[in-house]
Amino acid sequence: MRLDFSVAVHSLLYLDQNRDRRIASRELAQSLSLNPVMIRNILSLLHKNNYVEGSVGKNGGYRLIKSLEDCNVGELYDLTIPPTISYARFITGDTEELDQADSTEISGNIKETLTDLFTLADEDYRRFYHQFTLADLKEDINHHGYFINKVQGENK
Amino acid sequence: MRLDFSVAVHSLLYLDQNRDRRIASRELAQSLSLNPVMIRNILSLLHKNNYVEGSVGKNGGYRLIKSLEDCNVGELYDLTIPPTISYARFITGDTEELDQADSTEISGNIKETLTDLFTLADEDYRRFYHQFTLADLKEDINHHGYFINKVQGENK
Repeated sequence: MRLDFSVAVHSLLYLDQNRDRRIASRELAQSLSLNPVMIRNILSLLHKNNYVEGSVGKNGGYRLIKSLEDCNVGELYDLTIPPTISYARFITGDTEELDQADSTEISGNIKETLTDLFTLADEDYRRFYHQFTLADLKEDINHHGYFINKVQGENK
Repeated sequence: MRLDFSVAVHSLLYLDQNRDRRIASRELAQSLSLNPVMIRNILSLLHKNNYVEGSVGKNGGYRLIKSLEDCNVGELYDLTIPPTISYARFITGDTEELDQADSTEISGNIKETLTDLFTLADEDYRRFYHQFTLADLKEDINHHGYFINKVQGENK
């Protein structure tokens, strides 16, 4: 879910601004205006993937152990929003091989074609995010317009 | 919804293969293995946008009035899956301007940054589809692997 991605990004940026102390999920929840349970799930994922150290609990709290330059936005996207495994529910035509006599050439073959199209488009989409690190995101937060200029400059 | 896009693509390819006659939505529904009501909604959209001529009803049926080369896949994507108007539900931080004393620099500013990131990523995603026409899709249906080779060739 895309909100998970935003939670990860926001949490890591917040931890970066408070590197001198451990941050409890309750404090993060306040900054993100979200339920602490949701924050904890994402922090647990970030912990498992070596972005943060720390623990939940009474004297718990987390600390960021990477530089913002080492936090790739695309990697965070892949972590929080795994690629779609099957496009079957988005695709028309014969999905079962039962009644091939009835199926036209298109109906029998469009599944593979649309799956390739969606898969390649998704790979392309993820490549977009992989261009950036959290240092870029911080730059845009401080000087809004940085992203738009960067991307539109490249497309010229 | 992504299924709408697949329905549009599949319907237009089917109409292309049957240019000599009008096709009823019931016949399309059979090829697409979907409910005729869903087909009719998409055909009505394609009719409004001058892809097909014809009508529903007793002697109704549709006919494609464009060449496959003139049916851009990105335009069909934009038509069936309009861009997200607001990313608010995917974004963390202060969405209301109420309590600025409480908000950190990140919390107050991340909304604009994430909105730009998602918007630029979506534009990039749509550009991917705009590279192709339905003639490319037909080519892949007839010779599966055409898409993968085309895209991977370009990325080399």
